Amino acid sequence: MAIETGAPASAPASPLARVIERNGVPFAVRDLSLAESGRHQLRLAEHEMPGLMALREEFGPHQPLAGARIAGSLHMTVQTAVLIETLVALGADVRWASCNIFSTQDEAAAAVVVGRTGTPEAPEGTPVFAWKGETLEEYWWATQQIFDFGVDSSGAPLGPTMILDDGGDATLLVHKGTEFEAAGAMPDAAADESAEGRVVLDVLRASLASDPQRWTRVGQGIIGVTEETTTGVHRLYELHRDGQLLFPAINVNDSVTKSKFDNKYGIRHSLPDGLNRATDVLMGGKTVFVCGYGDVGKGSADALRGQGARVIVSEIDPINALQAAMDGYQVARLDDVIGEIDILVTATGNESVVTLEHLQGLKHLAIVANVGHFDNEIDMAGLESLPGAERIEIKPQVHEWRLPTGRSILVLSEGRLMNLGNATGHPSFVMSASFTNQVLAQLELHTNLDAYPLGVHVLPKALDEKVARLHLDALGVKLTELTPRQAAYIGVDPAGPYKVDHYRY
Amino acid sequence: MAIETGAPASAPASPLARVIERNGVPFAVRDLSLAESGRHQLRLAEHEMPGLMALREEFGPHQPLAGARIAGSLHMTVQTAVLIETLVALGADVRWASCNIFSTQDEAAAAVVVGRTGTPEAPEGTPVFAWKGETLEEYWWATQQIFDFGVDSSGAPLGPTMILDDGGDATLLVHKGTEFEAAGAMPDAAADESAEGRVVLDVLRASLASDPQRWTRVGQGIIGVTEETTTGVHRLYELHRDGQLLFPAINVNDSVTKSKFDNKYGIRHSLPDGLNRATDVLMGGKTVFVCGYGDVGKGSADALRGQGARVIVSEIDPINALQAAMDGYQVARLDDVIGEIDILVTATGNESVVTLEHLQGLKHLAIVANVGHFDNEIDMAGLESLPGAERIEIKPQVHEWRLPTGRSILVLSEGRLMNLGNATGHPSFVMSASFTNQVLAQLELHTNLDAYPLGVHVLPKALDEKVARLHLDALGVKLTELTPRQAAYIGVDPAGPYKVDHYRY
Amino acid sequence: MAIETGAPASAPASPLARVIERNGVPFAVRDLSLAESGRHQLRLAEHEMPGLMALREEFGPHQPLAGARIAGSLHMTVQTAVLIETLVALGADVRWASCNIFSTQDEAAAAVVVGRTGTPEAPEGTPVFAWKGETLEEYWWATQQIFDFGVDSSGAPLGPTMILDDGGDATLLVHKGTEFEAAGAMPDAAADESAEGRVVLDVLRASLASDPQRWTRVGQGIIGVTEETTTGVHRLYELHRDGQLLFPAINVNDSVTKSKFDNKYGIRHSLPDGLNRATDVLMGGKTVFVCGYGDVGKGSADALRGQGARVIVSEIDPINALQAAMDGYQVARLDDVIGEIDILVTATGNESVVTLEHLQGLKHLAIVANVGHFDNEIDMAGLESLPGAERIEIKPQVHEWRLPTGRSILVLSEGRLMNLGNATGHPSFVMSASFTNQVLAQLELHTNLDAYPLGVHVLPKALDEKVARLHLDALGVKLTELTPRQAAYIGVDPAGPYKVDHYRY
Amino acid sequence: MAIETGAPASAPASPLARVIERNGVPFAVRDLSLAESGRHQLRLAEHEMPGLMALREEFGPHQPLAGARIAGSLHMTVQTAVLIETLVALGADVRWASCNIFSTQDEAAAAVVVGRTGTPEAPEGTPVFAWKGETLEEYWWATQQIFDFGVDSSGAPLGPTMILDDGGDATLLVHKGTEFEAAGAMPDAAADESAEGRVVLDVLRASLASDPQRWTRVGQGIIGVTEETTTGVHRLYELHRDGQLLFPAINVNDSVTKSKFDNKYGIRHSLPDGLNRATDVLMGGKTVFVCGYGDVGKGSADALRGQGARVIVSEIDPINALQAAMDGYQVARLDDVIGEIDILVTATGNESVVTLEHLQGLKHLAIVANVGHFDNEIDMAGLESLPGAERIEIKPQVHEWRLPTGRSILVLSEGRLMNLGNATGHPSFVMSASFTNQVLAQLELHTNLDAYPLGVHVLPKALDEKVARLHLDALGVKLTELTPRQAAYIGVDPAGPYKVDHYRY
Repeated sequence: MAIETGAPASAPASPLARVIERNGVPFAVRDLSLAESGRHQLRLAEHEMPGLMALREEFGPHQPLAGARIAGSLHMTVQTAVLIETLVALGADVRWASCNIFSTQDEAAAAVVVGRTGTPEAPEGTPVFAWKGETLEEYWWATQQIFDFGVDSSGAPLGPTMILDDGGDATLLVHKGTEFEAAGAMPDAAADESAEGRVVLDVLRASLASDPQRWTRVGQGIIGVTEETTTGVHRLYELHRDGQLLFPAINVNDSVTKSKFDNKYGIRHSLPDGLNRATDVLMGGKTVFVCGYGDVGKGSADALRGQGARVIVSEIDPINALQAAMDGYQVARLDDVIGEIDILVTATGNESVVTLEHLQGLKHLAIVANVGHFDNEIDMAGLESLPGAERIEIKPQVHEWRLPTGRSILVLSEGRLMNLGNATGHPSFVMSASFTNQVLAQLELHTNLDAYPLGVHVLPKALDEKVARLHLDALGVKLTELTPRQAAYIGVDPAGPYKVDHYRY
Repeated sequence: MAIETGAPASAPASPLARVIERNGVPFAVRDLSLAESGRHQLRLAEHEMPGLMALREEFGPHQPLAGARIAGSLHMTVQTAVLIETLVALGADVRWASCNIFSTQDEAAAAVVVGRTGTPEAPEGTPVFAWKGETLEEYWWATQQIFDFGVDSSGAPLGPTMILDDGGDATLLVHKGTEFEAAGAMPDAAADESAEGRVVLDVLRASLASDPQRWTRVGQGIIGVTEETTTGVHRLYELHRDGQLLFPAINVNDSVTKSKFDNKYGIRHSLPDGLNRATDVLMGGKTVFVCGYGDVGKGSADALRGQGARVIVSEIDPINALQAAMDGYQVARLDDVIGEIDILVTATGNESVVTLEHLQGLKHLAIVANVGHFDNEIDMAGLESLPGAERIEIKPQVHEWRLPTGRSILVLSEGRLMNLGNATGHPSFVMSASFTNQVLAQLELHTNLDAYPLGVHVLPKALDEKVARLHLDALGVKLTELTPRQAAYIGVDPAGPYKVDHYRY
Repeated sequence: MAIETGAPASAPASPLARVIERNGVPFAVRDLSLAESGRHQLRLAEHEMPGLMALREEFGPHQPLAGARIAGSLHMTVQTAVLIETLVALGADVRWASCNIFSTQDEAAAAVVVGRTGTPEAPEGTPVFAWKGETLEEYWWATQQIFDFGVDSSGAPLGPTMILDDGGDATLLVHKGTEFEAAGAMPDAAADESAEGRVVLDVLRASLASDPQRWTRVGQGIIGVTEETTTGVHRLYELHRDGQLLFPAINVNDSVTKSKFDNKYGIRHSLPDGLNRATDVLMGGKTVFVCGYGDVGKGSADALRGQGARVIVSEIDPINALQAAMDGYQVARLDDVIGEIDILVTATGNESVVTLEHLQGLKHLAIVANVGHFDNEIDMAGLESLPGAERIEIKPQVHEWRLPTGRSILVLSEGRLMNLGNATGHPSFVMSASFTNQVLAQLELHTNLDAYPLGVHVLPKALDEKVARLHLDALGVKLTELTPRQAAYIGVDPAGPYKVDHYRY
Repeated sequence: MAIETGAPASAPASPLARVIERNGVPFAVRDLSLAESGRHQLRLAEHEMPGLMALREEFGPHQPLAGARIAGSLHMTVQTAVLIETLVALGADVRWASCNIFSTQDEAAAAVVVGRTGTPEAPEGTPVFAWKGETLEEYWWATQQIFDFGVDSSGAPLGPTMILDDGGDATLLVHKGTEFEAAGAMPDAAADESAEGRVVLDVLRASLASDPQRWTRVGQGIIGVTEETTTGVHRLYELHRDGQLLFPAINVNDSVTKSKFDNKYGIRHSLPDGLNRATDVLMGGKTVFVCGYGDVGKGSADALRGQGARVIVSEIDPINALQAAMDGYQVARLDDVIGEIDILVTATGNESVVTLEHLQGLKHLAIVANVGHFDNEIDMAGLESLPGAERIEIKPQVHEWRLPTGRSILVLSEGRLMNLGNATGHPSFVMSASFTNQVLAQLELHTNLDAYPLGVHVLPKALDEKVARLHLDALGVKLTELTPRQAAYIGVDPAGPYKVDHYRY
């Protein structure tokens, strides 16, 4: 039987933003009846996520995460579902929200709530608060739900012991909440505060009014956070630099098996996939311009060359530019070749990389695709306010913009990450490497906290190597072992780690 | 106002298999209201089909196909829509059916019927008789419609002057019909006649009964056929060898700009696309086995290597095998490495290339994908009748087969061409090359028939080169011109053709 | 003991151009003491020439070439030595000259003369008349020697029964000689006759004077010729067209296993090799321009991309141009990018592809390399007569040309084929495929002459496939076999041939 | 006129190991008449070393190295000659020896001594003490010469102010000498001391006897060392860890523009070059096994795949193994595929990677090539003492070893680095990047010593980026510039550096 629990005061007026509790499992998802379809996909994804499955096998019997309460904020996809069920298999108590208003796969969310053996009527899974297409208000409502683990035997409210974060929103809420509670008052929103910033302030204002020590209490209960992204990690280093970090953090992003795999090999897969699904345009023979030759740019260029495109690269860093040249790419400035480009890909992580002038200089029906960062990488705001420009929806996430020049361009995913918007993001195998780092980081915090004093840490190289090791069998890779004599010769343990810390792979 | 014309006696009991006539345009398609969406796609496709658009520009003003009545039987897709409108732009009277029960894109069919300036209520386009998901009966009913061009001023029935064929079904109907009409009687279906063969016999039996000279008359009105595929061309050579060919045929399939582009570069695009849409599985690091290293196999292997897969190839022809080795691929027998394969691709055009034993020897959740030919390339019949095998639909065209071994495999498109079933087939640019050959071949027959006596002809090399030439600008290719002295030095005309006939490219 | 046999009247005054006879073996080579070093290289080359070695094993016991007298004119290299010894192993009586004044490897020539078991003092091998660095007079003297097989039991002079030719010089001599003997007189050299043409006329004039039926007699004794090159084949087709061909010819050049292997994979190997040996310049990151995208151009572009160069291609044939684009290369005109090029490669087989203006427009110290054809592919004549240009030898075959522009360029091999001049030509494995075709062609003529009436023939596809087949084991290739049912399905014999004649591979 | 200066007591009895002084320039090289040929090569190399030439242009006018006395120990090649002349152009006083007994190019050494404007009779260049093929005694004699900069105005002996080292031999001599002088006595050679170790002890014993404070004095005059190699850097870190480092050191090896360019792109060039020059064997179609997938292994695998080989990789580090798999290579253990390998390449930097058992398991005439490290990477010692094994010199640096198995293998460069032994090492452009780092490091020590306290330092990222920047123009690379707003957005200076220190490129 389903019980609707009271939504907090700040809950948005939304039919989905309500915690349902059925068979003891609270949730707020699109539709539990999608669970069967989601379960099929989870089953296939498990096969492609050998790192997570190996952790289940290695650690499941020992339940090393018993006692851990994990608040997870990360795209609620099929792959994340496998991550969640791995944390649970290791003994953790878990609650989940997505970290993006569009990225939830509703059938995956449903499958996690229903669980492997439950039914939509009698779910036996894990609480999830996420659906595809949240408003900002709904998004931050959902994020709050992951901090509420009920009450202990004495009736005191229970919060998470750890955060698993992607982008840092969950961490932000705890830190901002604690800050404002310490001040005893909320600041007014700055005049130039973003729409989302205002929502966050509203959430915290309501919280301060109803429970003025809530986030202080939550923060004190947390022993650490593990963070997935460049942006989130950047925030953590700043918090620590400024003396405001409340608990230790593990920077999962800079594991080799995260940054050099997810960024490079993930995008090699999902960029052409997104281009195909969006446009069906032949890449072979086309002139493609890739802005940026970091790991994402490297993967992009490689994928497009692999499809027979002529690839031109731009760079601002002379080292990366030299790498691009040595890899056989023409390295040019966008301005100098703008009129030759069939497909324009941004992979920089910077803003205004493609300007309105660039957009107007492109060939008729040139394709514009961002795989780098936010939609400000392309001047979408400028395009939207350009007099005389007309936007025609060819299909969802694919728009023709008729420009005053008389030419049109095709903009994918409204300038946002098209590998997510036009394709399905990184494939399971790549995410398995990233998420295995996450689970190991959670394990480190929960079982080996002394090794991680207040600060931002990367995982020890031995664990990074372990993540790689867990993905070898699935690819048929046979690893060679060092003899003791060889290990001594290069001064390492035969079991690793094998490289100095500054080794670049 | 719509008029329903009388369906022939052999019409199947189907709500779609009825000729509607609206604003003077007869048709039988799914839904004319899809035309606007189809027109958007046509507009984008036109940009990717520079060969066809160049023909419109070059020949449109002169209407060289005026007087031609073309019966077209070819997948009714967006690209074919651009082909149809090109034929019309050159003056032809055209009627169209699809050559495959599943391949029609209903919005493209609707757009062709409605035309560029018409509306669903007042269509101004070209008659099409095709929808996605025809039964075999509906398919052959639709094929018959393309032979009916109304009556002339004297009231005599008008048939086509030319066939534009893909696979040879339209040509087959004329030849078989003529044969049976000459005999004055139909043969009984052989005991092992296929389901489709029986439908064809039924169609012709009904025709013979209602109009015993229909196909003879149609055949006499036809001056020639242009044929697109290996299979169709093979049938034509056999007909000619046996003295049964009724009219000259142009083998479009063996134009270089067809076979070496469509087969190789088309599949390089659509194989990974299909794998992605079907499974989202990372290709990087996987072991992929490609059966066959013809043009399709070459494109397949290249695409998969470009995505970071380890590719193993099999071949029966020692020359192609040596090419595969020289291109850096391991060349092995499927039996010898069956247990190492993650993705199995067939690209042979033969039957039983993947046997039931192979299927049972694959790794758990290995993917099986056919890009070669019919579904008998993989022993699907054997799989379907394997005791203990269970078929689970993951999503349309993607099935998990649980095998008695305890392992599962993923079969795409039920063993049929997965680049059509799981992706959208060859992209427009590739089809532009193929279809430009088709239009030039139709032009040749209509305006230069004396050059094509009864027999099977390939297009002159000059036209093959012209097709290539029309696709260069779109790719920014700058062609170098021979000086007269250079042309004399190698003994060619500066304008081409440039190579001896047996040159292999 | 060495006997010096009488040199013919036309012998040039040269210490090397004399036939020595030692232990019954006549020869004219640089130095027999080089034989041991040559034998080492032959031994290694045999391992890389599995096709020839397989023929020795298959046919050696049956001596099918017994009775054949073969006059060979083909670069006297290590690889050719293995060819010669294969012909001998099959029973033939062989005499050899080189087909190029520079291409003889003196140690290979010595090893052939000495033979496997002989010594420089008591050679037991095959007569060779070739050394590196012949004059034109010496060259044509040597070519004459291969037609002199002594006398038969009746004392009548014996000529060859077959010619094995490369470039057609041996064939030319027989045809021209016969022509002039029939006329009974020699024409005067035309005013614009080349230096080499005058030498040939001198040779034939002397011959006509001393033995007025010599070439007629030789020609009547010849049953056929097998020819290796495009140029030689071209001459043969012209002779046949003009009714002047004296005996059947087999066009070995157009075997797939010759043209598609030698041209493409051979140059892929030897172009970067020659660049390295000549200049040691890093190819990675450099802008390389390849003129021509035939098989040689394809191999060139592939090799340079494989080394990290940015490759730009030019083409005159729109089909090849489109292939280049689809393979991801920029296709441009040389004029348009002349100032960006670091390495300029010609692979066209035409003349004046690189003009004096181009040479003067290149970057300082740009490298100019010809792998296509004669040295007129680059305007070397123009360069040599350019006022103010200065030539500095950096090392043999590598010259800096200081231009009036103030810039220099590096010209390799004086504009001649640099893969021969700066490297060692095609590697043994590639030549094994070409030469196995030669041996099979000689076998066909000697044992199956009825199948080859007067005319120019290509080898049957079955033999082409056999050549490929003989090279698979060495590469570890496992060929798949057709089942009888599969063979029937595609209408071929399970043993091949597998493809229609116009198949392009 | 030439003056022979007195050789020190420890000088070996060798005609070359004598310091000649001519026109005030002391030297000990093979033959000054080689200078002209060397100068040609230097001139071409300068064009390929834009980083060094840019430093001459930027700094030459200011003479920032005036007052610096640099003792250089680094392979005395053409590229090093450009380095030496750059140091001199910046104002330094330089003396040079090679760091390897075989690596000197005698014409380069001669050109450096003669100088740009001098003659062999009146040299005006830089003192060099190096020739190809030194004995160990000669080598260490030459190394001593670079520490002797004559006497100052007061007659006191002058030593270097800085060392520029490759492998650490010059640094070793100073440290060991100082250590023994402090102890006042030499240790006896250990029983297992290597031959070279004994020579070093002899040198120092003689020095201690003749001038007991020589090395102490030299060491005190040195302000720092810049070191090029992994091995040398490793020694420096150990010295510093043990408190024995006498002066600051800059680790040039770990500049990105050194390790990621030299190792990867250098070997991509020189591995196939060495294979070609040694064996002329076709790489296409061959099965190549590359031990190790670090930067050298990555470059090796890439080069061989680029030539059409099938490449199999082995790894001991799971992260690198996973990279290899994701790049499409089969990853296997050498033992498991030993019988399939045509070419075996070691790129590990470890010992006994290829054992005697492996060597005996290889195919007949398989090629064994080391590009990783010392000759112990392959068990050459085991091979040399294998009963029944026979060594046949095919040509210098190429040996066939006939094994008791009846098979032979081809060992290149006697198991030592074959890219140096069979080819000419890394090309100039790659060395330009490495050497520009060296010059910048010398400049840092000489002009900015306070920034480098006692310890081992890497160059600041800004200088690493500068090195890259100086190589872009030569490749036609156009760098994009950050706008101030973009720079602020990612928190960097528009002029760089652009990345965090742990960025992996």
